[in-house]
Amino acid sequence: MSFTIQNALVTVENGYETADVEVVDNCISAIAQNLEPVETIIDGKNKLLLPGFVNAHTHSSEMWQRGIIPPLPLELWIAELYDFTPLEPEQIYLSALGTAVETLLSGGTSVVDHLVLIPGKELETIAAAVRAYQEIGIRAFIGPLIQDESLTAGMPTGDSAIERAAYTRPTKATLELMETAIKQFHKPEKGVNILLAPTGIQLCSDALFEGCIDLGDRYNICLHAHLLETSAQKQLAHEKYGCSAVEHLQKIGFLTPRTSLAHCVWLEDSDIAILAETESTVVHNPLSNLRLGSGIAPILKYRKAGVNVSFGCDGAASNDSQDLLEAIKIGSILHNITDLDYRHWITPRQSVEMASQGAAKGLNVADEMGSLTVGKKADFVLYDLTSLSLLPRTDPIGLLILGRPTNAVNSVWVNGQQIVAEGKVKTIDVDALRRELFDRSEWTSKRQSPMVGEIEAHYRQVMKLPIGG
Amino acid sequence: MSFTIQNALVTVENGYETADVEVVDNCISAIAQNLEPVETIIDGKNKLLLPGFVNAHTHSSEMWQRGIIPPLPLELWIAELYDFTPLEPEQIYLSALGTAVETLLSGGTSVVDHLVLIPGKELETIAAAVRAYQEIGIRAFIGPLIQDESLTAGMPTGDSAIERAAYTRPTKATLELMETAIKQFHKPEKGVNILLAPTGIQLCSDALFEGCIDLGDRYNICLHAHLLETSAQKQLAHEKYGCSAVEHLQKIGFLTPRTSLAHCVWLEDSDIAILAETESTVVHNPLSNLRLGSGIAPILKYRKAGVNVSFGCDGAASNDSQDLLEAIKIGSILHNITDLDYRHWITPRQSVEMASQGAAKGLNVADEMGSLTVGKKADFVLYDLTSLSLLPRTDPIGLLILGRPTNAVNSVWVNGQQIVAEGKVKTIDVDALRRELFDRSEWTSKRQSPMVGEIEAHYRQVMKLPIGG
Repeated sequence: MSFTIQNALVTVENGYETADVEVVDNCISAIAQNLEPVETIIDGKNKLLLPGFVNAHTHSSEMWQRGIIPPLPLELWIAELYDFTPLEPEQIYLSALGTAVETLLSGGTSVVDHLVLIPGKELETIAAAVRAYQEIGIRAFIGPLIQDESLTAGMPTGDSAIERAAYTRPTKATLELMETAIKQFHKPEKGVNILLAPTGIQLCSDALFEGCIDLGDRYNICLHAHLLETSAQKQLAHEKYGCSAVEHLQKIGFLTPRTSLAHCVWLEDSDIAILAETESTVVHNPLSNLRLGSGIAPILKYRKAGVNVSFGCDGAASNDSQDLLEAIKIGSILHNITDLDYRHWITPRQSVEMASQGAAKGLNVADEMGSLTVGKKADFVLYDLTSLSLLPRTDPIGLLILGRPTNAVNSVWVNGQQIVAEGKVKTIDVDALRRELFDRSEWTSKRQSPMVGEIEAHYRQVMKLPIGG
Repeated sequence: MSFTIQNALVTVENGYETADVEVVDNCISAIAQNLEPVETIIDGKNKLLLPGFVNAHTHSSEMWQRGIIPPLPLELWIAELYDFTPLEPEQIYLSALGTAVETLLSGGTSVVDHLVLIPGKELETIAAAVRAYQEIGIRAFIGPLIQDESLTAGMPTGDSAIERAAYTRPTKATLELMETAIKQFHKPEKGVNILLAPTGIQLCSDALFEGCIDLGDRYNICLHAHLLETSAQKQLAHEKYGCSAVEHLQKIGFLTPRTSLAHCVWLEDSDIAILAETESTVVHNPLSNLRLGSGIAPILKYRKAGVNVSFGCDGAASNDSQDLLEAIKIGSILHNITDLDYRHWITPRQSVEMASQGAAKGLNVADEMGSLTVGKKADFVLYDLTSLSLLPRTDPIGLLILGRPTNAVNSVWVNGQQIVAEGKVKTIDVDALRRELFDRSEWTSKRQSPMVGEIEAHYRQVMKLPIGG
């Protein structure tokens, strides 16, 4: 698997130049002009070569519910999500493929799948996702989504008492399951990494967090969780811990340079200082934060404080797409309205760095990927600069990040393997995938969620919204 | 030009059904099941038929500057824009084609082009845009962008005195030019409509507004303008009029049911009541409002007050795309963070109605287009529901509006003429257009704008931003 990309546009300090990029085995072995080609020659003319981006937070199986959940805040939206029939492992496999295809065709070479587990078929769920990601060839970071408290625990009580049902699986069994998953599936050299991914403070005990920290230390595994996505969660943290969620997570040792935290919308300045101090990474999911009305994460403050930030699409039931370029665009320009001083706004080049190098850092692989550097893994993307959506020619990165590129990804390599060529995924049959997704689903209009009905009155009371009407 | 679309999915109250749609001449003549087909048969199976959307505010020639202007607020961004060499009519023609292609392939059948005029070649500019829109066949509403004050007048003075250069063309000459443009180009039956479109209170005298109102009344022409895009403009209005911009525009008679107003970010509640009372239309441009840091327009308040709202992409130098589905998605979900009560949030079906019927109303053509109704013009779009981005099958409109459809537009008709078939524009050679755009441009990195340098210190002072640093 050796090849030379000839005459591609690459970035240099504040500009661009044309260069050849040589890959031997699965790593970048040279970047220079007029390299002597090795084995296969790839024509990079009129194409931009960038490091692969990371879809740094998603839930692949939510693809089955995309488009169907009405505009609702997280706490009611999740009740709708829970109402859907549990999936089968074959569906997990198909939605992982679909998530991978959309990620690849929007500049991603890695995906962080905070994977919802089918009750009673937890290892089969993980196996199905692993199979999909290995078949298509995207680099995968799979964080089986675990919790040890039931859904009703995730809502602040406010002044009222609500019933808290016991969770079905004991904490200890969940941690044993995670250890089995690590032993069985964590194979970084084969492109599959397991993350320890408790869903968040709203549904997890300290024992679960601490068990994950311990496993992470023993197996050198990264940590991942949701953090303060909604104001209700902020209120819950204070009810639960008597301090902020961030203070509590720091106290128990969950915040490390190997920890990435999705959302981080409702942090105080003192919390931001803790993230900076612990070198934790924030995964920004701007689209689901808007769709669910969660708020705007204070990304400019994070950057000013030196907190590392990357981008995620989030699950397709709350976005409802897996287009990474969309998440990067909106996650960049959204913050211009939060700070009058345009000198703090995120530039397109900074966005590219956050989506590649920033994400790699949060997954503890910054020495192996995230930039076009000799010695790093060949995870990169060639964009076709003759696509109408990237014309007329101006600043290629400005066009890519601030525009809405369509059919712009020409080729993708992961670990030196070419996965996309001429805009088409080569490793799987995408038409067959479309047929499977079509045949296993049906068009429908609005559905009624019984669970939303049950908890809506309580939610409106806690959030001080008018009841009825 | 008669045809029958068979077995397309169409919307009914809260759901969908399969129907045939018959078009005779350029109008919808029947919608029912199992119609006897006329002339050509179009297969609508597994496709969704929706009324065409309207890209209700853009500046087509900005396509030449997309991707290149760095993150800056409007007042400095526009100085960068002014620094580019004036275009040639042939470039106007090409960027109008490019704008039309992107609009059509994202569900639009009409475009409102607030057209920047080449100094000294004003009528040639309009003629070039008209030629492009007629060739490609999109319905065009061209509002030649006029002003009668110079750029420096557009900034509030704050405490300082700034020099105001005289504008090059007298008001009277501009109004005569508009009357000529109306006589020469306003041909609704041929799909070309002229709008009277003073750029906004920041650069126009009352004489110019009043002249437009008069021409509008005499020729039954719609009015269009920018309104309160930035907080600086709000400040300027109070300096200039001693009241709000909306109060002033109402006083001079510019606000009518034929008036559409782009942006409307900085209105007070009393201003919103005036828009409702005068039945003016707000054109929401969410993406440029974010990109330029202008703010979030209070769209939920407008809807609550009964103000009609539609969507625009805005010019490609401030977005930097002409994808209408992107503007609709972000312009819908963005507001969920502005109102805790999710019952006020915009649903995907409401978004569709705003983008079609709402836009038609603002252009005074709601009786002719904007919905699939027998007797209305055949301006509609067939979406391919087997596109990966619209799978698995759930709620088709939810997928279309909340997802990020890619290659989802299968066919487009405007005035009964098929313009897009199998996802390709049929009426022009898009590859030739791409070559022209490519050949007439070059890749570049950040440029230095002399004009921004001149006005930046004043801007920072007025906006109370730290000088220097």
